[in-house]
Amino acid sequence: MKRLNDLLERIIQRVNINLREPLFDVGPYVRDLVPLNQLTKFYAFYGITPYHPLNFHFTRSNLAGSYFLGKCQVSDSILYKSDIRGDELKRKGDIFQCEGFDIPLHEDETIRIKDSYLIKTLVHNNSHDPENLEDFIIQNTVSTHYANIHGSEVEGCYMGPFSTVDLTTLHDCVIGEFAYLQVSELAHHQVPAGTIWISGGDQFEFRYQHDPENLKNYIRFEPGTRPQGIFIDFVENRKDDFRRVFDVVNLETPSSIPSGASLNRYAVIKPKTQIGQNVLVAQRAYIENSWMGNGANAQENCYIIDSRLSGNNVTAHGAKIIGAELGEKVFVGFNSFLQGSKEFALRIGENSIIMPHTIIDLTEPVDIDASYLVWGYIRKQSDVEENSMALSELASITGQHSRSRMHFKGNGDSFVKGFQHRIEHILEANGAYFDGTGKKGHAQSSQNISYNLIQPYPEGDFKGLYPTIDIQH
Amino acid sequence: MKRLNDLLERIIQRVNINLREPLFDVGPYVRDLVPLNQLTKFYAFYGITPYHPLNFHFTRSNLAGSYFLGKCQVSDSILYKSDIRGDELKRKGDIFQCEGFDIPLHEDETIRIKDSYLIKTLVHNNSHDPENLEDFIIQNTVSTHYANIHGSEVEGCYMGPFSTVDLTTLHDCVIGEFAYLQVSELAHHQVPAGTIWISGGDQFEFRYQHDPENLKNYIRFEPGTRPQGIFIDFVENRKDDFRRVFDVVNLETPSSIPSGASLNRYAVIKPKTQIGQNVLVAQRAYIENSWMGNGANAQENCYIIDSRLSGNNVTAHGAKIIGAELGEKVFVGFNSFLQGSKEFALRIGENSIIMPHTIIDLTEPVDIDASYLVWGYIRKQSDVEENSMALSELASITGQHSRSRMHFKGNGDSFVKGFQHRIEHILEANGAYFDGTGKKGHAQSSQNISYNLIQPYPEGDFKGLYPTIDIQH
Repeated sequence: MKRLNDLLERIIQRVNINLREPLFDVGPYVRDLVPLNQLTKFYAFYGITPYHPLNFHFTRSNLAGSYFLGKCQVSDSILYKSDIRGDELKRKGDIFQCEGFDIPLHEDETIRIKDSYLIKTLVHNNSHDPENLEDFIIQNTVSTHYANIHGSEVEGCYMGPFSTVDLTTLHDCVIGEFAYLQVSELAHHQVPAGTIWISGGDQFEFRYQHDPENLKNYIRFEPGTRPQGIFIDFVENRKDDFRRVFDVVNLETPSSIPSGASLNRYAVIKPKTQIGQNVLVAQRAYIENSWMGNGANAQENCYIIDSRLSGNNVTAHGAKIIGAELGEKVFVGFNSFLQGSKEFALRIGENSIIMPHTIIDLTEPVDIDASYLVWGYIRKQSDVEENSMALSELASITGQHSRSRMHFKGNGDSFVKGFQHRIEHILEANGAYFDGTGKKGHAQSSQNISYNLIQPYPEGDFKGLYPTIDIQH
Repeated sequence: MKRLNDLLERIIQRVNINLREPLFDVGPYVRDLVPLNQLTKFYAFYGITPYHPLNFHFTRSNLAGSYFLGKCQVSDSILYKSDIRGDELKRKGDIFQCEGFDIPLHEDETIRIKDSYLIKTLVHNNSHDPENLEDFIIQNTVSTHYANIHGSEVEGCYMGPFSTVDLTTLHDCVIGEFAYLQVSELAHHQVPAGTIWISGGDQFEFRYQHDPENLKNYIRFEPGTRPQGIFIDFVENRKDDFRRVFDVVNLETPSSIPSGASLNRYAVIKPKTQIGQNVLVAQRAYIENSWMGNGANAQENCYIIDSRLSGNNVTAHGAKIIGAELGEKVFVGFNSFLQGSKEFALRIGENSIIMPHTIIDLTEPVDIDASYLVWGYIRKQSDVEENSMALSELASITGQHSRSRMHFKGNGDSFVKGFQHRIEHILEANGAYFDGTGKKGHAQSSQNISYNLIQPYPEGDFKGLYPTIDIQH
């Protein structure tokens, strides 16, 4: 185990040298966060299909529990149950369009993770950095429980639990718990816990700041402890359900699934769940007693419980939906926590957008109208007004607009259109619009994956480290 | 699947070009022997430990169900549930002694399998070819169900079902069903079904020939059909028991196993089985309702049912022991089939040696004395005399001696001593003599292996082929 311990210290040093400005020591946060023994208990796996170009290279790393699909290289890193995929990597010859430039890729894009420690962090690779199209890089970075690195290159960063960096190139930044960033590029910043910050260049900016004291009930993380709060309890309570799906090599697919739908064999599907046409349930998603209407998708680490999703719903990475009824095409953003119940039902009308990192935790029944944007923190019906706005009203804004802890400036129409466009992209990419032959997406091309299971050395100095593994077509 | 089909045809061509003399066409034997679809249904796996030098390289091959440990390279081959290991590979600097030469190895030995199709064939690597110490080569070879390639380089050969080539370098040979060869080197030979042939150079020779008509009841193989007979039925009837152990990723070790013993997690252990100190049960071994005394070992593909093994027993690859009581240090050779029952018990006294490929299939109770050599075909007590000899009597032979279908010539003492020496080597290598700290063997060093599961492309042209995989320390 000596080598694994050395590796952890080397990673801490690499991150800290990046974080001289803002001055931040990641050591106390991560040194005892996961017992090293734990890192030897889980297997990692990679998927093989005819649709995803293949090139895995793993060296001097621990990969416990992580999932790889498509081209990926990992060196000198610890990936603890990190949900890496690689199914939206760009390919040689693809044209990337950016501000009038048409940039052709001269080789297949590859995920490259180096000198990093990612703990239960989702890495999704639909990257948008026009400066570095072939390499999707995560380097000298520590990220903690249930953070999302989403289409974002990240170098020299610390990411707190349940934080998200989305379509943003990040250098030498500290991202607080449950902060959400979508700002294209950011360097040498310390982002407070609970900040929601979206910037569309000179087009618009959206900001929300969760109340720090209240947020601590949901998620808090002090150096030398483990992350705590309602979010952590929620996830920990459902851990055992995942054990079975990881214990078995090849699970039988339930036969009653419509042909265009796909339930990842590493997802938990509990009774009584209904799966519609073209539904996509990603790995480590958890569905219980819910109705998944046609084209609905459940992304990695999301939970859908006692709920009805009418169809074409996007439930983004890490979102939780409990006791809710969602109309058609309701979008629920990253790591949002929507908790209704039988007694206090949550109803959200069609085409509404729940912003990433929204908390709706009901103490009475709440109805939200169709075509609304929803953010912030909602416990009762009277909170809705302060934390939402009709999309049509938002689209009409030019200039500045504040509502309680939310501040918007710029062109509302461009913000709304951009968001709706992105939702359409997700539905298309996930195969929600598959018509039996055309418009295939992940739901259809992920139906038949060969999973390969890899494990570290079981004993000795190298215990917990994986051998060097190279997989090519 | 096209590529897999092409590969099969290319292998057939390579083997046939070797088998111009003796003229033999392997095509009709293997072309339809395993439906290609079947080759996509099983995962292969490789083990990682700190004790076995690591270097796997697999390319343009199907490896369905095979098991690799230690250095192994496979190219342009189909290995269908072949039990390859690599835990007795020689290492750089080891000195190999042969006829007065001390030959140091200038690099680690590696198993190299090329242009070959091995079906359920055990490959064990304790090789003895002084001319090629670093490479354990299997090339241009087709071998069929439950053949054993044991410490033997094999090039340009066809091996029939349940045949064994043991410590023999083989070029361009055809080995019939259930034939056993241990002759150091052989080229351009066709060996009839049921031949048992051991040659110790100019020291001794042992030959036995099973009655061909009788042997057909146990194993027969006509081109265009599958192998048939009692041996095949016996194995097929127990196939389902292996399903569970292969379906689960990490099986819990039963807690009641003595500390020096090791039950491979890919073995089947059924009630009510007792496991003594330093017992080794290898992968794909099957033990049911049996007593495994201290230091007993059960090698790959062997079956031990309703039997009592007193201790330090060797049950070699593919041997079957049913309804038998074996004294201390009874050795049962490769692919032997010993079938007693409650009604017709089989008792074999201590230190007796059951030759490889012996059939004992009782119609009445049979007792065999201690310190006997046993061969051939035994159904009743009166068959014992024709098919056995006291080791002391055998040791006294110089010159020729025939008994029914058995012919011996040369120095009996050297034959007996050689055999006993080999049994000691097996017990030592398997850890039967482990004393709590010293004399470790496979039973102790195989207790903690990380298994890595690999699978082929699930769809498309490459369906059934594995990507190129390279694993290094």
